[in-house]
Amino acid sequence: GGTALREIGIGVLGGGYMGKAHSVAMAAVGAVFATTLRPRLEMICASRPETAEQYRQQYGFGRATDDWRKLVHDDAVEAIIIATPQQTHRQIAEAAFAAGKPVFCEKPLGASLADSRAMVAAALASGQPNMVGFNYIRTPASQFARQLIADGVIGDVTMFRGEHTEDFYADPDAPASWRTDGTANGTMGDLAPHMINGALALIGPIKSVMAEVETVHASRPGGAVTNDDHAQMMVRFDSGAMGQMYFSRIATGRKMGYAYEVTGTRGAIRFDQEDQNSLWLYRSEGDEATRGFTRILTGPAHPDYQAFCQGPGHGTGYQDQIIIEARDFLQAIETGKPVWPTFRDGLEVAQVVHAALESSEQRRWVDVGDI
Amino acid sequence: GGTALREIGIGVLGGGYMGKAHSVAMAAVGAVFATTLRPRLEMICASRPETAEQYRQQYGFGRATDDWRKLVHDDAVEAIIIATPQQTHRQIAEAAFAAGKPVFCEKPLGASLADSRAMVAAALASGQPNMVGFNYIRTPASQFARQLIADGVIGDVTMFRGEHTEDFYADPDAPASWRTDGTANGTMGDLAPHMINGALALIGPIKSVMAEVETVHASRPGGAVTNDDHAQMMVRFDSGAMGQMYFSRIATGRKMGYAYEVTGTRGAIRFDQEDQNSLWLYRSEGDEATRGFTRILTGPAHPDYQAFCQGPGHGTGYQDQIIIEARDFLQAIETGKPVWPTFRDGLEVAQVVHAALESSEQRRWVDVGDI
Amino acid sequence: GGTALREIGIGVLGGGYMGKAHSVAMAAVGAVFATTLRPRLEMICASRPETAEQYRQQYGFGRATDDWRKLVHDDAVEAIIIATPQQTHRQIAEAAFAAGKPVFCEKPLGASLADSRAMVAAALASGQPNMVGFNYIRTPASQFARQLIADGVIGDVTMFRGEHTEDFYADPDAPASWRTDGTANGTMGDLAPHMINGALALIGPIKSVMAEVETVHASRPGGAVTNDDHAQMMVRFDSGAMGQMYFSRIATGRKMGYAYEVTGTRGAIRFDQEDQNSLWLYRSEGDEATRGFTRILTGPAHPDYQAFCQGPGHGTGYQDQIIIEARDFLQAIETGKPVWPTFRDGLEVAQVVHAALESSEQRRWVDVGDI
Amino acid sequence: GGTALREIGIGVLGGGYMGKAHSVAMAAVGAVFATTLRPRLEMICASRPETAEQYRQQYGFGRATDDWRKLVHDDAVEAIIIATPQQTHRQIAEAAFAAGKPVFCEKPLGASLADSRAMVAAALASGQPNMVGFNYIRTPASQFARQLIADGVIGDVTMFRGEHTEDFYADPDAPASWRTDGTANGTMGDLAPHMINGALALIGPIKSVMAEVETVHASRPGGAVTNDDHAQMMVRFDSGAMGQMYFSRIATGRKMGYAYEVTGTRGAIRFDQEDQNSLWLYRSEGDEATRGFTRILTGPAHPDYQAFCQGPGHGTGYQDQIIIEARDFLQAIETGKPVWPTFRDGLEVAQVVHAALESSEQRRWVDVGDI
Ligand SMILES: NC(=O)C1=CN([C@@H]2O[C@H](COP(=O)(O)OP(=O)(O)OC[C@H]3O[C@@H](n4cnc5c(N)ncnc54)[C@H](O)[C@@H]3O)[C@@H](O)[C@H]2O)C=CC1
Ligand SMILES: NC(=O)C1=CN([C@@H]2O[C@H](COP(=O)(O)OP(=O)(O)OC[C@H]3O[C@@H](n4cnc5c(N)ncnc54)[C@H](O)[C@@H]3O)[C@@H](O)[C@H]2O)C=CC1
Ligand SMILES: NC(=O)C1=CN([C@@H]2O[C@H](COP(=O)(O)OP(=O)(O)OC[C@H]3O[C@@H](n4cnc5c(N)ncnc54)[C@H](O)[C@@H]3O)[C@@H](O)[C@H]2O)C=CC1
Ligand SMILES: NC(=O)C1=CN([C@@H]2O[C@H](COP(=O)(O)OP(=O)(O)OC[C@H]3O[C@@H](n4cnc5c(N)ncnc54)[C@H](O)[C@@H]3O)[C@@H](O)[C@H]2O)C=CC1
Repeated sequence: GGTALREIGIGVLGGGYMGKAHSVAMAAVGAVFATTLRPRLEMICASRPETAEQYRQQYGFGRATDDWRKLVHDDAVEAIIIATPQQTHRQIAEAAFAAGKPVFCEKPLGASLADSRAMVAAALASGQPNMVGFNYIRTPASQFARQLIADGVIGDVTMFRGEHTEDFYADPDAPASWRTDGTANGTMGDLAPHMINGALALIGPIKSVMAEVETVHASRPGGAVTNDDHAQMMVRFDSGAMGQMYFSRIATGRKMGYAYEVTGTRGAIRFDQEDQNSLWLYRSEGDEATRGFTRILTGPAHPDYQAFCQGPGHGTGYQDQIIIEARDFLQAIETGKPVWPTFRDGLEVAQVVHAALESSEQRRWVDVGDI
Repeated sequence: GGTALREIGIGVLGGGYMGKAHSVAMAAVGAVFATTLRPRLEMICASRPETAEQYRQQYGFGRATDDWRKLVHDDAVEAIIIATPQQTHRQIAEAAFAAGKPVFCEKPLGASLADSRAMVAAALASGQPNMVGFNYIRTPASQFARQLIADGVIGDVTMFRGEHTEDFYADPDAPASWRTDGTANGTMGDLAPHMINGALALIGPIKSVMAEVETVHASRPGGAVTNDDHAQMMVRFDSGAMGQMYFSRIATGRKMGYAYEVTGTRGAIRFDQEDQNSLWLYRSEGDEATRGFTRILTGPAHPDYQAFCQGPGHGTGYQDQIIIEARDFLQAIETGKPVWPTFRDGLEVAQVVHAALESSEQRRWVDVGDI
Repeated sequence: GGTALREIGIGVLGGGYMGKAHSVAMAAVGAVFATTLRPRLEMICASRPETAEQYRQQYGFGRATDDWRKLVHDDAVEAIIIATPQQTHRQIAEAAFAAGKPVFCEKPLGASLADSRAMVAAALASGQPNMVGFNYIRTPASQFARQLIADGVIGDVTMFRGEHTEDFYADPDAPASWRTDGTANGTMGDLAPHMINGALALIGPIKSVMAEVETVHASRPGGAVTNDDHAQMMVRFDSGAMGQMYFSRIATGRKMGYAYEVTGTRGAIRFDQEDQNSLWLYRSEGDEATRGFTRILTGPAHPDYQAFCQGPGHGTGYQDQIIIEARDFLQAIETGKPVWPTFRDGLEVAQVVHAALESSEQRRWVDVGDI
Repeated sequence: GGTALREIGIGVLGGGYMGKAHSVAMAAVGAVFATTLRPRLEMICASRPETAEQYRQQYGFGRATDDWRKLVHDDAVEAIIIATPQQTHRQIAEAAFAAGKPVFCEKPLGASLADSRAMVAAALASGQPNMVGFNYIRTPASQFARQLIADGVIGDVTMFRGEHTEDFYADPDAPASWRTDGTANGTMGDLAPHMINGALALIGPIKSVMAEVETVHASRPGGAVTNDDHAQMMVRFDSGAMGQMYFSRIATGRKMGYAYEVTGTRGAIRFDQEDQNSLWLYRSEGDEATRGFTRILTGPAHPDYQAFCQGPGHGTGYQDQIIIEARDFLQAIETGKPVWPTFRDGLEVAQVVHAALESSEQRRWVDVGDI
């Protein structure tokens, strides 16, 4: 009995940080979620033949290539995962859609607003499933936060504070690299999208933005820095809620500072990815003397936890977020129904990023609708 | 042997929240800090004779009055503590200085920028010791934070994030009162000064401000609300550091959210008044594998702790901050040397508050120097 | 109108750590709690005339002496606070009771079980108010914990885990001193009583004990160590609940580790004195998905908080515990009704300590009732 | 170039909680750790044919059976994972060893001491690789703790405190089941082994034990309870260190309370599985004023982290522990060298468990060497 399983050939572009994460996820997702579509690691692509072959062997793919077009057009490759640098996202996605294949693309959607727009157009034109890799919002804790807010548990949201802070460039003597070059690789391009997406998911559309985007260490050993080290912004949501965000790659001491506080008229939520298995919830209920923030440990009672472990508090990790994404991508392919976040959602993030850059340059509030 | 102790007659204006705190502090400070000047609780003043008499008896004053002028001009009253509402600060302070008496004034300095300016002028004209009640920066932890930053332990400061958040008006059904009336009693008037003072103390002068000041619940049972519920601002410090602040009286779940994070090029500091005996310090030193934020429990090794307890981690509380203030005020009187923060420092805070209000109204960056 | 206040002459024995704490407390308690009896710092006693005089001046006493008998028999001294080393507690207390005076004695009650017994007998014979200085159980948080348990909020208690751990002797090279000499000054004599008292207060009488008491560093620079560095015990409460405790003066990193966990059939409580303004409460109520430990910040809704501050989360500290004790002692004197914990309660603690020492030596369970 | 990969047929017994975890782990481990041996999910076994078939399909096995002997003797099954209830461990392991196959067995090793002994004998006789499923000690944090202690970073260990506490039977109305029946399924049989193994790994062999093992709720809806709800013990390690442990399945509020504190003469370590990506380290180094427990977030600098994620603080979860185990088991098979913990280590744990049961019954200290 049971559902008829079907194999699906997966092609992954890029074998680095995220290329590996998605490969592992595709290897594990079937067993974890009992998906109807069962991934077959068909082909992997990297810049050089040797590394491509190395990745193939390590992650267990059938074939390797250093030519992304080959992968995209290979008949056995039925779904595409883009885990290459931002500058390459657009052309690969366009080709994949043209070839009639579903595309999962790592964040940020495109390297520029224009790229992101073109990618959405290509996705729509193709009618293919498409998704963007905003993984942090997919932890059981953040999914639950989203539910709680949507269900009105904390009342009407009055304030959102969010940050995405890490410290991999905190040391002023860390050398210049491709990461310190080009807007798409700066903090607004690379880190901010995660938390902007988080803000949109938790609170809703952003109406206007006032930002400061800044390069703190303008030169580093090895050359000049052409993108931003950190940035802050004040926002106004469509709902009327106020917002405040901060993004940084020089936040000394912060390793995975994807953190937010949502304040409502009847409660509040706090979350920090550095303790990703806890969600803190305050409710204005019951005796004043027993009120406080409750540290809820995620467990089978929370979204997408049980598939990983039957015991509460046993915890999920970074890799598990990617497995959840894989499940969603397969489901979008299987059902033909878009699964959030699609390329459109990626574009919405890109618009806020662009509004922030413009605001910072012009030192004025910018309406996202004008972007 | 030893120093010759001298009694000093203290007059306290206001017997409420802070009037009591200062009365207790004056009763205890001599024993705690072995001060040379020993306070005698000479006279207390409140709006009505009955409550004044009640406070006199409760706190142990010699005399009571409902006429602040009487207190100010009483010969046995040698030093004045103003713990009445903001609107009264200016005239009382001016009278006290005119009478040649040292003045400690609760925050905010004046009810308006003009009041604050006049109060500084009066203080200078009189040459009398003068101090403002920014007590939170006086915990052993925050004093130590200030030292660490000044000593360069965290390198050059690149970012400051601060908040002063409470939730006493979070409930939209909490009735209107004098607290919801008048700029001086709103969040920018009432709560923000503490953290702005903290920012100035920890990082240095603020050059410019971009703010949003907002009334979320414009009407409450009992009437319209004429002041702000919460506010945020982006700032630029003279040092070049970026800053971000948030202030709220509707921050559901936050009870004493005086909290800050200071990021430097070689370390970082985090503090939250809701755990006021801990300071979190990160230093980019030693093996990467053993780095992290260290939770330092305050103890005799930290400023102004030992007088309260010889054991580390045993903890100080809110009242102890006021005792530290009392010690400083007595010392300013004894030595004739100003003790930080003086009225001038209170004015500096008022200028930033004013700049923020102007910025919010005009939706543009405002230079504090232009205020 | 109002209650007629009455002055009461206080005599404090010892001007060190706790002598100072009680002196400050007596200076402040009237203003804090509006007590009917108003302490007058009448006389202080220390071992040497110079230090006694120095303490007198520092804390603001009228007179000083180096002869404890003089203090005890002085007519203006109406109540006695014993803050001298444990070996002196008995003879001073006996003399004070014989002189018909109320006695507050620092923990532990006596230096030995025999001393404690004699002191209880003396107290009873005199009919005078008597109290022991178990201050930690008097924080608003721990008082509230006691209430919650008594009210059945966590159901039937099944397990108690407690510790009193500090690290002032963690360094093996810390020199020998009077503290490393004599059972009364070891960890079981000096630190354990606080948490044993806590256990008795929170859970009820202890029926039997199985313990291990140990000297880890038998010799230190300057001489041999004759008392214990740390100790653990398993206990059974009269109620049937199981218990586990640990005490240490060599617990590297622990500064004020008075901490406990109480587990019941419907909830649980956790507390750590190093964050003394928080109580953590779990209740098996409501949706599984929103359960967790709630961090309750103490505030006016909790016992004995409001007198120190009207704002929740603003926090009390070590010194405030002693002020609460002072209020209770004055109240016992005023009303003639014993206030917990009396000398009898101190003896109950001493019996458990004795049972533990015996158990450790004989390596067997010992019934407290047999002591 | 590169290592020649080799497929290995895996047979998993049991498809429940742990059967699934091991199946997922075997699906993912190759991609995560680039293992030389590449698992092929050959056959899965469960009690009933339907569920076996269901597991087969869900986890992606080739074949299914309800006869464990069939699986054990199948030629394509080259390595055996036992994830069935404790009562079955012995006979399956014996058969597997007899068939000349490597065995990974879930904890506890056997259902009784006799079983565990027999299993070690069978393992030795066969010469096959063998491992026991103590997964919690395999987190990057706990592995790092082990390293730090072994490297002497915290000096000589003076005290160990450990617990394994959960609350799945905290509700007295939770019905009786197989879990409440038989010593092997009680708290000492089921939960304690994890933390006893942790203690052995972190501190070394345990010399003697004094324990209390208790059934709190002797009857539950549906029948009598024949095993223990919670247990505590005092231990003495061979090294001379003192130890204290607590185990519970009725620890209301605790979800995954695998937690320990290790105190040494020069530092201390604290860990709680409910925040499994943090290790707290205190070192008696540097200025007293900057000492405290450092919260170290695990990252690429820590054991077995980098394979899961290149970013520090991004976090691993429960499933990742099982993947680490899978890597180790494959490595043991590949190299023919035993990987800790082997069946011998499982037996050592069983001996401590047995000593504790005996101690509790006889109310006396029991030497583990006598077991
Ligand atoms: N969601 C998340 O948590 C994260 C997302 N990312 C995103 O993932 C993407 C990849 O980043 P990383 O994995 O960190 O980069 P990486 O530098 O670790 O790996 C990039 C891979 O792309 C390959 N590649 C580069 N150019 C190529 C080309 N023209 N054709 C074929 N292959 C090419 C390289 O050979 C390499 O294997 C980026 O868009 C980045 O923003 C990165 C890290 C975390
Ligand atoms: N530093 C801190 O943590 C805090 C500072 N404050 C500041 O302390 C001041 C007092 O605030 P609260 O104590 O909360 O007020 P409160 O309302 O509790 O007490 C005010 C007192 O002033 C007296 N008063 C009012 N008008 C008077 C007049 N014209 N003449 C004589 N007495 C008069 C009242 O009778 C009352 O005794 C304010 O400036 C406030 O901003 C307040 C709370 C905390
Ligand atoms: N409740 C708590 O948190 C604490 C309680 N204690 C207890 O308080 C008591 C005092 O301890 P500390 O203040 O730490 O000691 P300390 O050494 O700081 O002070 C002891 C004082 O007693 C005086 N003294 C000693 N022998 C005397 C004598 N025969 N006659 C008159 N004065 C004499 C000394 O001159 C000195 O002033 C002890 O029983 C101790 O166990 C100590 C610390 C904390
Ligand atoms: N390391 C860890 O974190 C954990 C370890 N365990 C251990 O794992 C083992 C399995 O426990 P769970 O997975 O929780 O049990 P479970 O009840 O979820 O699954 C047991 C499986 O074994 C199968 N089974 C039972 N008897 C069988 C037989 N005679 N022949 C073939 N299959 C049989 C059942 O059909 C079922 O698929 C136990 O030894 C347990 O102590 C369990 C949970 C967590």
